[in-house]
Amino acid sequence: MLTRIDHIGIACHNLDETVDFYTTTYGFEVFHTEINEEQGVREAMLKINETSDGGASYLQLLEPIREDSAVGKWLAKNGEGVHHIAFGTADVDGDAAAIGAKGVRVLYDEPRRGSMGSRITFLHPKDCHGVLTELVTSAAPDAEH
Amino acid sequence: MLTRIDHIGIACHNLDETVDFYTTTYGFEVFHTEINEEQGVREAMLKINETSDGGASYLQLLEPIREDSAVGKWLAKNGEGVHHIAFGTADVDGDAAAIGAKGVRVLYDEPRRGSMGSRITFLHPKDCHGVLTELVTSAAPDAEH
Repeated sequence: MLTRIDHIGIACHNLDETVDFYTTTYGFEVFHTEINEEQGVREAMLKINETSDGGASYLQLLEPIREDSAVGKWLAKNGEGVHHIAFGTADVDGDAAAIGAKGVRVLYDEPRRGSMGSRITFLHPKDCHGVLTELVTSAAPDAEH
Repeated sequence: MLTRIDHIGIACHNLDETVDFYTTTYGFEVFHTEINEEQGVREAMLKINETSDGGASYLQLLEPIREDSAVGKWLAKNGEGVHHIAFGTADVDGDAAAIGAKGVRVLYDEPRRGSMGSRITFLHPKDCHGVLTELVTSAAPDAEH
């Protein structure tokens, strides 16, 4: 069951400049940064609010570290902007299976590692009215972030 | 001060079909529907979670009612997908003025009517790393929705 907007993923050319924009313009703060080699991105998570399911909503700013990464190719085609949206769930495996059974293409056979030790998968944007959609189960609260 | 992700605005060709996708696939429920003649859209708000500032986060599904509306022109150019993101604030007038003073173009001289009696303005996407960004102050809790 999807219980929150977990994050909005925004692709950018230069992470430092984009972080500077969001922190200076709006007063948001960087909660976490990491490099995800598998996804081919360098990223910053800005926590915007907490949510009624015990989680939180973030902006995820993404800079590709390889031109041939999914985000790199998307950015070359589209320019900077919203790359994907992500819903939070306690059970990414179960929800991905249930959604897949409804005919929506799930992009990974098994969830992969996302931000802050989360487990994530993606749904094909052509099956979601043009929206690349991620499902996320956060790491346990005492896990790394 | 921006205190929540208020909504993600998603442009679609057919509101009824898109609502059906989001309710059937994810179990989300329609919280509110309206036609905003000024914005040139028919819309549905799906409430996803409540937020720590006393507000909530929604998906806003938008179908243009005129081809020459902002959403209609965007949809003709880009196809279905994420049209804008919106941050919630208790003071859209003050925040818009403060952000405008930092050199970000604010698209309205005065906030206009948004969903559910809210007051909204937009920031130019070219000044926001490609993201059309809305600021929203919700109507008082006892107002119409």
